[in-house]
This record gives sequence, C-alpha cells and structure tokens, in this order.
Amino acid sequence: MSEREGLAATEEHTIGWLGTGRMGSAIVHRLLNAGRPVTVWNRTSAKTGPLAARGAQVADSIAGLAGCDVVYVMVSGPADLEQVVLGEGGLLAADAKPAILVDCSTVSEEASAGIRAAATAAEVAFLAAPVCGNPEVIADGQSSFIVSGPVKVFEQVRPDMEAVAKTVVHVGEQEQARLVKLAHNLYLGMMVQSLVEVVTLAEKAGTSREAFLEFFNGSALTSPWIQRRSPELAAGDLHLTFTNELLRKDFDLGLAAARKLEVPMPATSIVSQLVQSAIGNGLRDEDFLSLYELQARSAGLSGVQSARL
Amino acid sequence: MSEREGLAATEEHTIGWLGTGRMGSAIVHRLLNAGRPVTVWNRTSAKTGPLAARGAQVADSIAGLAGCDVVYVMVSGPADLEQVVLGEGGLLAADAKPAILVDCSTVSEEASAGIRAAATAAEVAFLAAPVCGNPEVIADGQSSFIVSGPVKVFEQVRPDMEAVAKTVVHVGEQEQARLVKLAHNLYLGMMVQSLVEVVTLAEKAGTSREAFLEFFNGSALTSPWIQRRSPELAAGDLHLTFTNELLRKDFDLGLAAARKLEVPMPATSIVSQLVQSAIGNGLRDEDFLSLYELQARSAGLSGVQSARL
Amino acid sequence: MSEREGLAATEEHTIGWLGTGRMGSAIVHRLLNAGRPVTVWNRTSAKTGPLAARGAQVADSIAGLAGCDVVYVMVSGPADLEQVVLGEGGLLAADAKPAILVDCSTVSEEASAGIRAAATAAEVAFLAAPVCGNPEVIADGQSSFIVSGPVKVFEQVRPDMEAVAKTVVHVGEQEQARLVKLAHNLYLGMMVQSLVEVVTLAEKAGTSREAFLEFFNGSALTSPWIQRRSPELAAGDLHLTFTNELLRKDFDLGLAAARKLEVPMPATSIVSQLVQSAIGNGLRDEDFLSLYELQARSAGLSGVQSARL
Amino acid sequence: MSEREGLAATEEHTIGWLGTGRMGSAIVHRLLNAGRPVTVWNRTSAKTGPLAARGAQVADSIAGLAGCDVVYVMVSGPADLEQVVLGEGGLLAADAKPAILVDCSTVSEEASAGIRAAATAAEVAFLAAPVCGNPEVIADGQSSFIVSGPVKVFEQVRPDMEAVAKTVVHVGEQEQARLVKLAHNLYLGMMVQSLVEVVTLAEKAGTSREAFLEFFNGSALTSPWIQRRSPELAAGDLHLTFTNELLRKDFDLGLAAARKLEVPMPATSIVSQLVQSAIGNGLRDEDFLSLYELQARSAGLSGVQSARL
Repeated sequence: MSEREGLAATEEHTIGWLGTGRMGSAIVHRLLNAGRPVTVWNRTSAKTGPLAARGAQVADSIAGLAGCDVVYVMVSGPADLEQVVLGEGGLLAADAKPAILVDCSTVSEEASAGIRAAATAAEVAFLAAPVCGNPEVIADGQSSFIVSGPVKVFEQVRPDMEAVAKTVVHVGEQEQARLVKLAHNLYLGMMVQSLVEVVTLAEKAGTSREAFLEFFNGSALTSPWIQRRSPELAAGDLHLTFTNELLRKDFDLGLAAARKLEVPMPATSIVSQLVQSAIGNGLRDEDFLSLYELQARSAGLSGVQSARL
Repeated sequence: MSEREGLAATEEHTIGWLGTGRMGSAIVHRLLNAGRPVTVWNRTSAKTGPLAARGAQVADSIAGLAGCDVVYVMVSGPADLEQVVLGEGGLLAADAKPAILVDCSTVSEEASAGIRAAATAAEVAFLAAPVCGNPEVIADGQSSFIVSGPVKVFEQVRPDMEAVAKTVVHVGEQEQARLVKLAHNLYLGMMVQSLVEVVTLAEKAGTSREAFLEFFNGSALTSPWIQRRSPELAAGDLHLTFTNELLRKDFDLGLAAARKLEVPMPATSIVSQLVQSAIGNGLRDEDFLSLYELQARSAGLSGVQSARL
Repeated sequence: MSEREGLAATEEHTIGWLGTGRMGSAIVHRLLNAGRPVTVWNRTSAKTGPLAARGAQVADSIAGLAGCDVVYVMVSGPADLEQVVLGEGGLLAADAKPAILVDCSTVSEEASAGIRAAATAAEVAFLAAPVCGNPEVIADGQSSFIVSGPVKVFEQVRPDMEAVAKTVVHVGEQEQARLVKLAHNLYLGMMVQSLVEVVTLAEKAGTSREAFLEFFNGSALTSPWIQRRSPELAAGDLHLTFTNELLRKDFDLGLAAARKLEVPMPATSIVSQLVQSAIGNGLRDEDFLSLYELQARSAGLSGVQSARL
Repeated sequence: MSEREGLAATEEHTIGWLGTGRMGSAIVHRLLNAGRPVTVWNRTSAKTGPLAARGAQVADSIAGLAGCDVVYVMVSGPADLEQVVLGEGGLLAADAKPAILVDCSTVSEEASAGIRAAATAAEVAFLAAPVCGNPEVIADGQSSFIVSGPVKVFEQVRPDMEAVAKTVVHVGEQEQARLVKLAHNLYLGMMVQSLVEVVTLAEKAGTSREAFLEFFNGSALTSPWIQRRSPELAAGDLHLTFTNELLRKDFDLGLAAARKLEVPMPATSIVSQLVQSAIGNGLRDEDFLSLYELQARSAGLSGVQSARL
C-alpha cells in the first residue's frame, strides 16, 4: 500500500491530545464525557490537572503520545506547531508514530502544507482541522470542526469530532480548512459592519439601539452571534473579545488568499479599510464591535458612553 | 381631552381589515385562529371568500369597516393607501370612524406622515406597522411587526399583533417603522453580498458551495434566511423571490434616507453599486441571490448552471 | 418653417446678458473686450456700473433685453431662472422675444428641460450652456462652455463663446450639458480623494507633502487644478473655495443622474460616503480639500495645523 | 570621516551607466547630449552600439565601470540588481569602487534597503532613484527622477539628473523613492477609474466620448496623461501600454506598503478590486485603460469595438 490512509475502519482507536490550553481542555472534556480514552500532554503540565481528575492519562513527554492511534494538536501558532511536530523530541521524531495527526491550531495554508508534507513523508496521515467557537461554545457542544485532508482519514476521526462539536464538515483534500476559517472571519467582520450601518441609521432616525436590535433579533436576518452580543451593543458597553488589530490580521490573511486565488472582494475590501480607519482613529485595542463607534462618530452621533472608549 | 389616544384600555375591541391579498389574508387567518372577531373588505371581493369560510365578516364597502374600533390597512403602495383612507368613500370619509388606524403597507416616510396628519386631523389615532415576512412565514407565526406612533396606542393593539407575529416592536413615535423596514432590507442585501464573497473564495480554493454552506450554517454567523436558501445556492438553482431591480429600489430609498439623516453608509453604498452592476450585466429580473452570479463571473468562475441565467 | 432655428447664419447679432454677478460680469468683460455690443440687466442694478463704464448698455427692465438677438442668462439657481424667463415681466412674457436664449446657470436637467419646453413653445431657440471656471479663470480666458441644444443654434453663438472661453464644446441636443457639468464635479471629488490617499501614504513614509507634490506636479498625472492648490496643501493652510456640503450636493445630483441612467459608479460612490463622513466628523463648512484632514486623521497623522480646522 | 558622503562638491565626476535597455539608453542619450562623459555596460553588448556611436565609452565588464565616480544602474528587477551589484564580478566586488551608486530600477523597499546596506558597508554612497516616464517621455525631457538617500549625496548628482529630466525631487533619506513611485502608480489607476466612470455616465446620457473628452481636456482637471490617451479612448481603440495584470502588481505592492504604514486607502482599495474584476472578466492582458470596458459593460453599454477585446 503506497499511501498511508490512517486506521483500519473498524479499529477502536486511542486518542492523544497535545496542547491543553483553554480551547484544548474544553474539547478534551467533551471527549472524556463521551467515554473516549484520552492521553494528554501540555508544555505547562499544571494545566493537565483538571483533565487527569476527570480520567485523562497524562503523558510525561510528547513521545508518550506517539503510541496513540490518533494525535490531535492544538497550539498557539505555526512556530509552536512546528516545534511539537517536527522539532527535537517532537511527534514525528519518536520511533512510534501515530497513524493520524490532526492539527486543530489556527495556522496559515503554507504552514499547514509544510506539516502535511513532513507527516506524509513519515507515513502519518494528516488532517487540518481548525475549530470555530470559544471555550464556552465548545462546552455547550455548539462548536464546529472544519476539516481538510484525505476523506478516508476524515471518516475515521469523524466520530471523535461529532462527540465534541455540533458541526463537522470536510471541506477539501488539501489545506482548504485554513481558508474556510479565514472566510468565516471575513464574514464576521462584514456582518458587524453591515449591522452597525443599519443600527446607526435607525438610531439617528430616533429608534433606540435596543428597540432596533429587538426587532432585528426577531427577524430571519439575525445570527446567534448578533443575538449574543446585542445586549452589549444596546447598552453601549462593549466587552473585549477580539481586537480590531486581530481582526485586521485575519483580513490581511483572507485578502491575501483572495488575491492569490484571483477572487475580487469588494465588500470585504471596504470593510478592511474601515477596520484600518478604526485603528487610526484610536480604536486599535478595542473589541471590533467598536466599528460601531467609528460609524457613529462619522454619522455625527456621540458614540457609546463606555469607560474604555 | 385634546388628543385622541385610541381606545379605553380595558375595552374589548372589534377589528376591521382592509386589503386581503396574500399577506393580508395570512394575517387575518392568524387573528381568526386566535379567536378575534374580524370584519374584512377587499377591492376584489372574491379574495375574501376563504376568510368568510373561516368566520370573518365581510363588509360591502369600506364604510362597513368604519364602525370597527381598530382598522388595519394592507394595500400595495402609497397610491392605494391614500385612496382607501383619504379618497371618496374612504375610511376617513365615513361619518363613523375607527378609533385607531394601523397601516401595514410598505410606503415611504413621506406618505406615512401624510396619512398620519390626515388621521390625526380626523381624531383617528394612527400607527405605522409594516410587517416583515412572506405569507408562509406569517402562517408559521414567525413574522415581525415594526410599529411606530404613540406608545399608548401601540399598547392597545399589541395583543392583536402578538397573536399574529413572533416579534412586535415599537420603534418610535413618528414614522420610524418605515425606516426600520428599509434598514432590514439594506442589511439583507449586504448579508447576501458578504455571503457570496466568502462562498466564492472558498469555492475557488476547492471547497464546494455545499460543504462551505454546511459549515457556515452550523456556525454562529448564519441566519435563518441563509439557512433557508442555502440548498438553492448549493445547487446553483436560484428561485425568484425578489429581483435585483426590486432590491435596488430599497437601496435607493434606504440610501436616500441615510443621506437625509447624514449617516455615511460605506458598505451599503458599495453593495448598492454591485446591485446596479448586476442589472447592467443582464441580471435585472433575476432573484437577488444572483449577486452570486456577478461575483462568480468576476472571480473567473463559470457561475451557476441555471436555465434562468 | 415649423422649427425656430435661431438666426440667419450671416447675421451680426446683438447680445443681451441677464445676471451680472461675479461670474456674469467676468464673461461680459471678455465679450466687451472682444468688441461685441452687449446690453445688460441685473436685479441689483448697481452691479452693472463697472460694465457700463466699459461700454455696455444697461437695460431698465428684462423687457429691455428682449429685443436682442441672443440673450444669455446667468442666475443663481432654478427658481431665479424660472422667474426671469417665465415669470411676470420675464423674457418670454415680452412681445418682442430674442431668437436665441442661452442659459449659463447651474440647474438640474429637469429645470433645464422645463425652460427649453417653454422657450420652444414661444419659438425661442434654447441652449443649455453651463460654464466651468471661477471669475479669475474666466478673466484669464481659461474657462469652458459646455453646450447642449440644437447644433445649428450652437454654431450661431459659438463665436461669442469662443471670444470668452478656451474650450467650447457641444455635448448633445438636449440637456446633456447639465450632466456633463455634474460629471466634471464628480471627477473633481474623486481626484481630490485619490490625491489625499497617496499624499498621506507618502507622508507617513517620511516624504513631506511639499516634496511629494513637487514630484507629482512634474509628472504626467497632475492637473492644473492640483498644481494651483498644491501650495495650500503643502502648507496645510486650506482656503475656502467650495465646502464639503456643496460638494455633497453635486455628488447627490450626479449619483441620482447615474442611477437614473443605470450607470454603476463604484469609486464615485465610495468618495461620496467619505464626503459624508467628513461632514459627520465636523468638516461640513470646510473647503473640500479637507478630505485630506479626514484621511490624515484616519491614518493616525495629526492633520493640518490650520486655525480653521 | 566615518561616513562616506560621495564626492567633493567641486569635483567634475565621471559617469558609469549599467543597463542600456530602452529606458537606460534614452537617459544616456540625454546625458551625452548634455556633454557628459559616460561609460556604459550592458549584458547584451549589442545594445550599447548606438550609444557608442554617439560618443559613449563601452566597458568590457562591470568592473570597467567601477572606476567611475558615479555609477547608475537600471536593470529589470531586484534579482538582476542584486547580481550586478552584489554578485560575483559585480560592482561592489571590484577593488576600485565608485563613490556613489544610484539605482534607477523599480524594486521594492526591502530590496532597496538591502542594496543600501551592502553599499554602505562597502563605503559607497547609495541613492534610490526610480524614473517616471517611458522612453519617448525621457527623450522629450519630460521624465522625473524620484530620489531618496543622503541629501548631500543627492546634491552631487542632481545636475546629472537635471540634464535628463524635467523634475528631480529628493523625497527622503531612506527608501521613500520606492514608495513614491508606487504612490504615483496607485494614483494612475484611480485616475483612470475616475475618468471611465464619468465618461460612461456622459456617454449613456448621449454625449459622445469624443465630445466629453474634448470638454474634459480643456478643463483644469485633465492631466497630460489623459490628454495623450484621449484619442484612443474616444476611438475605442486602446493600445497596449501596461496590462491590468501589471497594474494589479503595483496595487498589491502599494496596498501592502499602506497596510504596513497603517494608512487606510478606501478609494485605492475599491479600484484594486475593480482591476481584479477586470482580470476575472477576461481583460488580464489588455491595457489597463480597459477599465473602461468593465465599466461600460456594467453600465449596459456595448464597450469598445476593438479587435483585441
């Protein structure tokens, strides 16, 4: 067999989890709740304590995960990913190797392709599988896995993912999962700008943000995200979830991908420039819902009365 | 008492309904289901038959509604509205007049203000109350009433509306309901453009529209509207619900209102130009989801394989 | 002869000029310099003094112009235009009527078409002929006449116009001259926004506005307008020539015309929204070169150090 | 003296010129016409023939230029630049070195900074000096030099440049000249889009492109570039000068620089997306004046009747 295709389909597999920060821990909790055996490792070992108390095995080193059939990795960026997979003492350096490596970190297509090539060379099947959702969303079972890689391999780990998340989708054979996550974030920025334009319009006509949002959230246009954050916007008291500077980074990556693929993005592009204007107007470190603030000021409104702004 | 404020709060009121097209009939059905007594009138009297069969009284003339405590009007535009309210044989021409007139038609702020002034002069309280939803949505109890006018009057009819719709919101004391409905439609256009940009991006990267939408519809960003229309977009088989030309009209009205209120609308504005480009590129009479078609062609994709396009 | 076509081609015609404000006076001066006989009338008669001193005849009333072969009108807007042409004691009310009426005011297509219809009914040939240039530009012979109406009539008055202006162009048989003037002003707004984006970019990279403009003004991209205003922009000392509010009015009219003609205007549209943002950010009554100020602030620069701003 | 500052001010310097393609040859011709002694070298030595015939010395190798006081380089991109300056047998590899190195190629800031660092380490003063203009413009003495680097060094070579070009501007001490050239090209793209929007608007109203451009070119808004290309646009017969794909490259570089400097570019950004749409709509290899074609089609016009399109 010239190509590694993961596990035999009927095999009951063992799971390793590398990286138990807030996101990783939330996912492992759901795996344990579903009765899956999980072995965990984390650079800062203290973070594995609560998981051990719930029944997880704790490995002493990354090599201690290598014997698992499937190893999931969730670290904070491409440098960490490369180190724990390719570096000295990393997953692919051990004699024993997992059959399948699943990366749940948020990294670029290029970094993802590099890890895939190395895994493939080591006869380890590789899936890119970024997650949408924050720890609370994961705990509620409302998160999503976006997966790309060989579809046969995907089918083998899909039951694990379905034990964790509401939505598990295979979006391609290569690195498409990375792009799909960026597309999600581009839409998020556009959704917020679209919302703040119509909120401001209604507000200046004399409709309170609260009344407008009550109407909007009862319509077929609203989204769970908007529903969740409407009380903050109505009250003018924005909590920090994701800064304008971080949103700009996703727009940079998403627009670069669009450029490479030769896809024009007219609305995305103008929202990107508005995020930049927000930064130039002093809102760099504010939550990106402060696009409302930029819009309100440009409409001659006073903006929100928040201590932060 | 110098100001007409509708009904005494405890009064059990009678309801007249003027205009029983598809939308009006759907609403009256729900009122009847809720056990409210309703007298109806329609220019084409045949349309009242199914309602009579369900227990509605049918008036012979508009004057036959004037004795009702509350009369709702739902006609197709400002000219019809003016005729049935202000014209010869119209509601305000009768000796008996309702205490409250509620207009559920979609008309401009200016037309609404004109009717309000005439009603007020005739000591009839007036509410502007456009409805969001199509007949199916209304039948399912998922529609919304957006209401503006005196809040005391609103409180008197609110129970009627709550028997019909999921969401009933008071958005101001004057004509704000008209603007809020336009704001809804501006957001709708922006939502669709935002969606087709990210769908096209994912598609060109090798992710099928179906897979992308499956992911998207599991995320916190999706909306009931997108969920409902995703199968069509995935299949590339768009059904006609609302043409680009009609969407352009709402953008014209919405941007004119924004201009009058001095609210910049950068994202709205660029979407408006894209709708115009769609029209110039031959998509005038297509469903406005054909913004996908314009975007796909501009991305060098073949667009959807629909017989219509 | 069923159609009035102005003058016999060989006729040496007499000229009447109605409206000797700053623009009108500047044009009449040039006509007088060219040796043309001109009779003038102005509502505020004092303004005709300097022209009388240069040799113009001064009429006591509008009727005193009606005997001229060609009467030019240059008043401040459509209401004045209608009054002096159609009103009591107006040009078309006199028994004697000019063969040709040329309106040099800035009015809408609709107002222009109304005057044309009335003139045609009175067997007076009509030309729309707005002028580009301010009084200084006119005095220097650098202005432009944009003319629309019957081409035979145009040919008869073209020598007058060529005595005044550098450029005299016939742009159509109906009201096209009005649109062409608007198109000029739309381009002006876009040119300024384009300029301030690149100026700000260079400035933030460490190139002074002065150095950038010196380069730019030596390139094939610059325009006489930019060359004239560069010293102000370099010095950050903007003089008031045309406010953002007035520019917005031209954008309103131009975009409305584009909408009616179904021409998408993506760049125009975004500049229009930026002008609105400038107004919302407190620059309503500033010269529209203050688009620089909006851009500079959004780029995190301090903007110009002007007492006005 | 710790810092190399070029030549003693009074010195009459010798000039080397590396790279005699069409642009380089046009510049050397002007230097020779001005009586300057120039030694040239070109990879394809045949191209130096016409210059030798006019009196230039021809070096056998790059090392043959190293003895000149000032060496100008004009090659086709960063790879060539690095090779002829830093590579084996390159300018900085020779024992003798010029006092001043002036790079007239079009390269990125990063490449420019790398060459500057190497030159400085070798005690050779360095100027970045891209040229605006094509060979015809250069021959007519209408080109521009945009120069950045130490101002004292600039003053030493300024007389050479003034013998060649109409405009010679010092825009900063580091790599600013590279950005200023990009800013020029961004403005060029915006100017063309602005023009085609108003041309199309007038055209759809019934004013021919020819008449509109005649008017426009007589106004204070036109530019030499527009004047030069108006006959082509009027005739609908566009010659290839610079493709949409090449313009897109400059927009990519310019917007990346703006992003790095945190300057929002709303109008630039939308034009960038329109260039991408033009490419997606089949205009990749057309002259970028074909932005007219995209705009005309989107306005429901037939576009230009050119065999190319």
